[in-house]
Amino acid sequence: MSASPTTPSEPATRERLVAAMTDALQRRGLHGVGLSEVLQAAQAPKGVLYHHFPGGKNELAVAAIESSVAWLLQALDRLVQRPGAHPVDALRQWVSTAQQALERSGFEQGCPLATVALESTPGDLQIRAALAAGFAALRERLAALLAQAGAAPERATSLATLVVAAYEGALMQARVAGTGAPLQQTADVLLAMLAAELPPPPGA
Amino acid sequence: MSASPTTPSEPATRERLVAAMTDALQRRGLHGVGLSEVLQAAQAPKGVLYHHFPGGKNELAVAAIESSVAWLLQALDRLVQRPGAHPVDALRQWVSTAQQALERSGFEQGCPLATVALESTPGDLQIRAALAAGFAALRERLAALLAQAGAAPERATSLATLVVAAYEGALMQARVAGTGAPLQQTADVLLAMLAAELPPPPGA
Repeated sequence: MSASPTTPSEPATRERLVAAMTDALQRRGLHGVGLSEVLQAAQAPKGVLYHHFPGGKNELAVAAIESSVAWLLQALDRLVQRPGAHPVDALRQWVSTAQQALERSGFEQGCPLATVALESTPGDLQIRAALAAGFAALRERLAALLAQAGAAPERATSLATLVVAAYEGALMQARVAGTGAPLQQTADVLLAMLAAELPPPPGA
Repeated sequence: MSASPTTPSEPATRERLVAAMTDALQRRGLHGVGLSEVLQAAQAPKGVLYHHFPGGKNELAVAAIESSVAWLLQALDRLVQRPGAHPVDALRQWVSTAQQALERSGFEQGCPLATVALESTPGDLQIRAALAAGFAALRERLAALLAQAGAAPERATSLATLVVAAYEGALMQARVAGTGAPLQQTADVLLAMLAAELPPPPGA
């Protein structure tokens, strides 16, 4: 009701473009999907894309990466803030959500950061900067969570890097194997290791 | 001297094609590189490609995946067979070699299986079959190594899946960060965990 009459649908169109690019990155990566497919999925003409993202496909990809990181951090925060939640339980739920998305999509839908990270070359400056910042933010949030649960700060940083690494590499193996088993095995070993290292939650 | 005069350079041409595709997969993945670039790098005309690989780019990619897996297994075997080598030392050397290749290439050259694994969709039947077999072979060789060093068989299988996952996910983070630190941190935590779990090598 309060939207400007000259730009009635701007926020929605921008969001649809970002959502369509995020979906493409999760399924096929940046090079595997054409701009026309993204525009069709977003129901947006080409001119609207360049209005919101003058840098075109790459700038839209950066926005999708940033939006995905924000979403992942929010999802992690929601899991952690549940009453009595231990980091190990939150991480198990996080992995389980990713595994369900992968399985429900017939092993097509993975992490929105991973494929474009491997496709990127050193010349893709803005995309690599967004990805580096995104992975760093995920590591920092996980490290803070582990430090809060009793890990020494430096140890928490290394453990967080291992958790992100194991998550991405297990999703990769599960994707091509067509079974969630690699994700399950990786989570079991890694989370048992974290549980043995961190003090038990209060009241446990 | 003993080569047939009608096909004097066949093995060398096939090998050059596989090597050029492997290099492309390591740097940009399957979708990021054009067939013409691969042919140019291999100094091979298009007709020669279809003579060796009637299925074209995808069949060449499958051959590059299989060749890469054979090479990775041989490299691992060489590290393990060194006198007095403990699996943890062999894995440290393996990660170190990958880290050096990534750094020397200016953070462009990664694992030849990883990018195409994430680019692949469920419809890429032959590529996914080659990748699934490749990752399974790597996991099995690592599991045998860990079992030989004293891990219980089922535990060795899970640990091997975690090692492959951590390796791929750490390479991914190092690639976009432009520093080997995520690979170093991941290896330090993971290999210390393996060292604590496996009996010390004889004479240690």
